[in-house]
Amino acid sequence: MEKTVKIGLLGAGTVGSGVLQVLRENAREVSLKAGASVEIKTVLVRDAKKQRPNMEGIVATDKIEDILEDREIDIVVELMGGLHPAREYMLAAMEAGKHVVTANKDVIAQFGANMFDAAEKNHVGFLFEASVGGGIPIIRPIMECLTANRITEVMGIVNGTTNYMLTKMTELGEDYQTVLKEAQEKGYAEANPAADVEGLDAARKAAILASLAFNTRVTLPSVSVEGITNITPEDIDYARQLGYVIKLLAIAKDSPEKGVDVRVHPAFLPKDHPLASVSDVFNAIFVKGNAVGEAMFYGRGAGSLPTASAVIADIVSLARGIVNGEVREVGFQVFGQKQICPIEETVSAYYVRLLVADMPGVLGAIATAFGDEGVSLNSVIQTRKVDNLAEIVAITHHVKHRRIARAQRTLSALPVVTKISSVIRVETPPTMEVA
Amino acid sequence: MEKTVKIGLLGAGTVGSGVLQVLRENAREVSLKAGASVEIKTVLVRDAKKQRPNMEGIVATDKIEDILEDREIDIVVELMGGLHPAREYMLAAMEAGKHVVTANKDVIAQFGANMFDAAEKNHVGFLFEASVGGGIPIIRPIMECLTANRITEVMGIVNGTTNYMLTKMTELGEDYQTVLKEAQEKGYAEANPAADVEGLDAARKAAILASLAFNTRVTLPSVSVEGITNITPEDIDYARQLGYVIKLLAIAKDSPEKGVDVRVHPAFLPKDHPLASVSDVFNAIFVKGNAVGEAMFYGRGAGSLPTASAVIADIVSLARGIVNGEVREVGFQVFGQKQICPIEETVSAYYVRLLVADMPGVLGAIATAFGDEGVSLNSVIQTRKVDNLAEIVAITHHVKHRRIARAQRTLSALPVVTKISSVIRVETPPTMEVA
Repeated sequence: MEKTVKIGLLGAGTVGSGVLQVLRENAREVSLKAGASVEIKTVLVRDAKKQRPNMEGIVATDKIEDILEDREIDIVVELMGGLHPAREYMLAAMEAGKHVVTANKDVIAQFGANMFDAAEKNHVGFLFEASVGGGIPIIRPIMECLTANRITEVMGIVNGTTNYMLTKMTELGEDYQTVLKEAQEKGYAEANPAADVEGLDAARKAAILASLAFNTRVTLPSVSVEGITNITPEDIDYARQLGYVIKLLAIAKDSPEKGVDVRVHPAFLPKDHPLASVSDVFNAIFVKGNAVGEAMFYGRGAGSLPTASAVIADIVSLARGIVNGEVREVGFQVFGQKQICPIEETVSAYYVRLLVADMPGVLGAIATAFGDEGVSLNSVIQTRKVDNLAEIVAITHHVKHRRIARAQRTLSALPVVTKISSVIRVETPPTMEVA
Repeated sequence: MEKTVKIGLLGAGTVGSGVLQVLRENAREVSLKAGASVEIKTVLVRDAKKQRPNMEGIVATDKIEDILEDREIDIVVELMGGLHPAREYMLAAMEAGKHVVTANKDVIAQFGANMFDAAEKNHVGFLFEASVGGGIPIIRPIMECLTANRITEVMGIVNGTTNYMLTKMTELGEDYQTVLKEAQEKGYAEANPAADVEGLDAARKAAILASLAFNTRVTLPSVSVEGITNITPEDIDYARQLGYVIKLLAIAKDSPEKGVDVRVHPAFLPKDHPLASVSDVFNAIFVKGNAVGEAMFYGRGAGSLPTASAVIADIVSLARGIVNGEVREVGFQVFGQKQICPIEETVSAYYVRLLVADMPGVLGAIATAFGDEGVSLNSVIQTRKVDNLAEIVAITHHVKHRRIARAQRTLSALPVVTKISSVIRVETPPTMEVA
């Protein structure tokens, strides 16, 4: 007789309704692959009376106890989002001996270590593939497929909202406010878009990826974050002219000398880099390891069905273990706390755009000011007139962030400099990196 | 006390030496991730006397019995390649109770079912991540990360040699013979390049991917194969002008109506398709599922260290099970033999290039001949003169292969047609497919 694995679902929002739909539509495939019938028994919702699709035979409840105290439920799937009470519910589920699947990047980024400890203590599985990259398989590939490698770098486009906005700004030449409004109308951006456009969502994912890739603990406060709110059509146009596109990148690097450098910021990316052609709401994560070289994982980083795909893969994995009498998932492996590289010590090339007095010798004065702070320039060009002023665009060689910060102060103090319009990092891709 | 997992390695060629190197260089990472010390004990080679790097403390032997009869050896890693005796050695290893890891696409494509049966019978693990896509995680992601999906399509660039050649033909305008010579000089193509350029290597990988993605059995004879030997600089140039690039694609589609359609052939791919920018020796595999939408896996499809990365990931996975007292890898899941769609019934758009008499009414006669065979044209243009003849390029709408084959015969019989220079499929990507 075939075993049935029973699930308690916390939340029936965008992702929860996707899980309900996919488990119904693909019931046959899922049960064959799991070696068990996979059934959602109970769903925790705010309003248990509300009619929802794909709920025939499933109990809706507004009481968490109906799930935590139900001994038939093997797996609790948390899709409520937010820190509280999601975290407390997951911990309670583990204490009740239930395996837990979650898509909750907030909890993993902030309380990851804590959650893994609880899973280990209670001898239950704890899986979270959907917390980064939506439907893209990335957590398990890092934890199980790249184990031969010392991973030195992870670089990803992990926020669909901002990638959609930057794509539209690039394709249509529109400004930030216009594309934000359009993204909100299409449902790609929230009414309060801060978490996306200011980079916080990407930062949480960066913390998770860095922790997994480098087998250390990186939490949100260690991630340096800068959003896309200051990106202008002018910057995007200069990027294009120079052979780049602007992307919001989550970057994590690990080096024995400098420690772990984790940051989220907009960056110039060479247009032939594999990440440069990742458009609209798509996500992609580029991983560099000392055996595999470069690998990239691409797909839909959000959305009801893609995220449900990742959640259900975790459910199938646990169900296979339950059928075999023991769940044996690889937990989060920490091999020691690595040092975090301070942002001032991180190294990048930079694009700097300035408005200066339109007079002879200005280009020289600017170049000298950069040089005085130890910033060597790859190129500096005077591009166009803006209101009787001259616009200058400089691309630096690789420098430490503190040097560029000092150069900014020095430049600002020059009488000929009216304004520093933009300072954006230029990411030379791993394949083009100079040793 | 830490457990030691001992390995017998069959073959110390390109991939074998990579495994020796990576296991030595990344010994600490690998043992931490495996939860066991992973040691190569014995290597089977042709010449046991030959000096090899990274062999300190490792026994070289030319007798398979030294590995098969060694009770200390937990895992046999087969990297000899070819069908025989690789297959027999793997079966003997399983019978001796040893887990097996292989990179051998020939054996999997031809005897896959057989091998999985033997693994199950002997209660051992049998893993083969390196058999497709070199270092790219693709086997495990399909088997474990996309389990929520009904996978409907897999499309990949899975042969680095031909992708390198087509990239050079596209970038430099060189002809087939010139780039083949260059690829041979660089070691990217073998002295006898047939398996690569005629599509057989890609066909084996296509059979493996189709079997895994659709949970059925697809063996090499079911794969329709066409190589790149007839691709000319003219075709590549026309592709460019029309907004495409030419790639050698491994394509597998599954539909309830038509069955499983598996083929390898050159194809026009729209230049904004994610696979279009996969250049040089890189590989990528695009997967379409009914929950995840599109996902793509990209990386180095061959080479010593990238392939070793995949092999060692399989070793680590088995080692984790050995440490826990039981290896429980998910085997190859076949849910029934699906029907194979005959090549005549497969559907594509086509690019057809012809040399015709340069006289009025010819374009009409060509279009009529296509129409008579039920092939409707998307566009037909007269492009240039070649030796007093006119060259015509037609792009068809989607048609069954048998219609295009018939149209070819009808066209050849027309007095005005001197030559049909090329017939190449045009692959509309999944994201642009018309329902």
